[in-house]
Order: sequence, then structure tokens, then C-alpha cells
Amino acid sequence: MDGDVEQPMLAKGPPSHRERHFTAGEVVRDVIMGVSDGLTVPFALAAGLSGASAPSSLVLTAGLAEVAAGAISMGLGGYLAAKSEADHYKREMKREQEEIIAVPETEAAEIGDIMAEYGLEPHEYGPVVEGLRRNPQAWLEFMMRFELGLEKPDPRRALQSAFTIALSYVIGGLVPLLPYMFISTVQDAMLTSVVVTLLALLVFGYIKGRFTGSRPFLSAIQTTIIGAVASAAAYGMAKAVQAR
Amino acid sequence: MDGDVEQPMLAKGPPSHRERHFTAGEVVRDVIMGVSDGLTVPFALAAGLSGASAPSSLVLTAGLAEVAAGAISMGLGGYLAAKSEADHYKREMKREQEEIIAVPETEAAEIGDIMAEYGLEPHEYGPVVEGLRRNPQAWLEFMMRFELGLEKPDPRRALQSAFTIALSYVIGGLVPLLPYMFISTVQDAMLTSVVVTLLALLVFGYIKGRFTGSRPFLSAIQTTIIGAVASAAAYGMAKAVQAR
Repeated sequence: MDGDVEQPMLAKGPPSHRERHFTAGEVVRDVIMGVSDGLTVPFALAAGLSGASAPSSLVLTAGLAEVAAGAISMGLGGYLAAKSEADHYKREMKREQEEIIAVPETEAAEIGDIMAEYGLEPHEYGPVVEGLRRNPQAWLEFMMRFELGLEKPDPRRALQSAFTIALSYVIGGLVPLLPYMFISTVQDAMLTSVVVTLLALLVFGYIKGRFTGSRPFLSAIQTTIIGAVASAAAYGMAKAVQAR
Repeated sequence: MDGDVEQPMLAKGPPSHRERHFTAGEVVRDVIMGVSDGLTVPFALAAGLSGASAPSSLVLTAGLAEVAAGAISMGLGGYLAAKSEADHYKREMKREQEEIIAVPETEAAEIGDIMAEYGLEPHEYGPVVEGLRRNPQAWLEFMMRFELGLEKPDPRRALQSAFTIALSYVIGGLVPLLPYMFISTVQDAMLTSVVVTLLALLVFGYIKGRFTGSRPFLSAIQTTIIGAVASAAAYGMAKAVQAR
């Protein structure tokens, strides 16, 4: 699993058939992102408001409203950002294609520049340049990847990713809020929420660490600390506003 | 500006001196991200709560608490994510280095595989492979970039980025909340907040479009729509909870 989540997996094969496969790893990454955020801000908001003596109904109102707004913002925002990247890729590809047609010598020289960065001599990379020039489609894809560093985005991923992140945010956000729905005293609800959420943050931080290949225990602690600090900040702010 | 924000700018030069420069474009991107989120969720939460007849003090309490929690979550979370990426890069680099030493033939064959994807023949890329093998440091950097697609992260960027995003989120969040601090009637405050924030979303969406090279007017409309939909969701949720 080491590093799987962070590397886009490219299909090996002729460039004209290269597509960026969506992998289970990418869905997992979206879930991790959504749940992480959902576990943190709604929790902090609820804990902060409870600590500042707000009634249960209010904590729930604010908390669930935030989850709704946050899910929409992440989901729609993520979707539009992905579409924007896809448009950007198309525009850059078109421009690169025009340059290959209009000023091939300049483009060929750019391949040389890239190769030269690795200490390669013209007589060493010359045949590569010639080979690419023979195959304009491959040349174009080479420039997209190695000059511009752009991966071809999968249009279906945008929608899927947005939906996954938004849904994960909702699930993450419900964890700290459910106690307020079922426990009548706000102090008891808050205590339950804190315990349940901190446990969830620990577990989730650990899972996150495993999937991203970083140290899971460290990740668990860090994730939990972020939740704790965010809550403290929300609590402090709520108290400050109430003191006005 | 087209595409500037999205491409990391690599310093051209000998690989051993290559570093990922932090550019004004990256700071701008962080500001855009932070302000976008700050303008959306706090606005939606405040509008949703106001619309569901919460008193001004409550809207402010919840709104500012959310801004505090959100800024911490984005800032700390972003910082730790960047550190985690930097650790991941170091680990992958170490592993790649060990492979180059232990199984150079396999690694050399991998260069060939990458080249072959672009229709290049062994006699064309052979000299490149030999050239890289001569220079293990350059070979390592070539594999990092072209096999794994990883850019060397700048450690200072993590802290700077986190701080920028968090501060931007706070600034974005204050825009919809300031009216509630200075206007006593919650309906008037909400109306002012809605007008001011929708204008801000339009302007900001436009600026975002300019910097990312996508159509600015479209970006302005989309950004504003996200804010509107998120508010509607927050309002609907707040009403639903109050109706329990």
C-alpha cells in the first residue's frame, strides 16, 4: 500500500491508448479527505458551542447546517475544480500541438533542454529527439508529461470524486453530531461526542497513515491533535463572542 | 498568467542544484483556496441560521467558531499533509537509490520502458540510458521525476502555505460575518451579508478564473452558485432541525 494512494497509476501501453485509470486507491484517498474534514470541523463547532453553553437544539442546528454547507462546498467545489483542470489540460495540449506544428525546431530544442538537465549530451539524446519527431502524437504526449508535467485527467473521475468526498464529509460530520440527537442533556451529549470523536480521529488517523505510507501512530496522534486544537479554537471564539 | 498558478516552476540547471522554487503563483493559489472556502461555508452557515430565525449573537457565535475551527483544520491539516508528502518523497527517493545500487539492470530497463511508451526504439534511447547510468545522481532524479512523477518538495513551503491558507480562510470568513457584528437587526444583517458576500463571490470567482486561466466570467458565476447552493442547503437543514 506504500505510496499507492498518492501516485496516479498510468496504464503502460502505446501513448495513444494511455489513460489515467481510476484506482481503488483514488476512491480511498477521497474518502480519507472527506471523513478527515467531516470529523474535524463539525466536531469542533459542536464542542465549541456546547462548551459555551449553547442548548442542544442549537448545537445540532449549527452543526448539521455546517455539514450540509461543507459537503456542498467540497463536493461542488471539487467537481468544478476538476473540470477546470480538465479544461486547462485540453487548452495546454492544443497550444502544445500548435507549437509542434508551427515551430518544430523550438519544440525539439525543448526536449533537448529537458534531457540536458540530467547531464545528457546532444549525441546521446539526439536519437530520442528524432524518434519523437517521427511520431507527432507521441511527441505531443511526451511534451505534455515531461515538459508541462500534466497528467491527462479522466472526466468521469471529477463527478465520482466530488460525490465521494461530499458523502464522506457527511458521514464524518455525523459522528460527532449523533450524540446530540439522542442524548438530552447537552453536557452529556458533548462528553459523548468528544469521546466518540476523539476515538474516531485516532482510528481514522491511523488508517490514513497506513494508506499514505506514513507512520500510522504518528498520523493518528496528529489527526487527533488537529481535532483538539480546532475545538479549543472554536470554544475560545464562542466564549469570546458571548462575552461581548 | 495562463496556467502559471498550476505549474510548479523548476529551476533549470544541473540536477544536483535543482530545487522547487516557491513562486508568487503558489502564494496566490493558496490565497485563492483559502478565501474561496472562507467565503462559502461561514456565509452559508450564517445565512442558514439567520434564515431559520436564530438571533444575531448566535449567528456570530456559530459563524466565528466555525471560522476558527476551519482555519485551524485547513492550516494544520495542510501543513501536516505537506510534511507527510515531503517524508513520502524522501522515502521513495531512498528506495529508488537502493534499487539503482542493488539492481541497476532492472532500473536501466525501466528507463527503457518509459521511453518505449513514446514509440522509441532501443537503439534510439540506448545512449540516454548509458548517459544516465554514468551519472547516478542524475539517474536518481530522472527516475523520481519520470518514473514516479514526484517533485522535490520545498520544506519551507509547507509552513508558509499552511499559514497563508489559514489566514485567507479567516479573511474570507469575516466578509459574511462582519455585518452581524455591526447591524443590530438580524434580518438587516443577513440581507447585507448576502449582498456583500454574493458580490465578493462574483469578484473572487472572476479573479480565480483569471489566475487559473479558465474563463473568468464562468468562474465568477460558478463560485457564486456554490455559495448560493451551500446556503440553501444550510438553511434547509437548519429549518429541518428546528422543526423537530
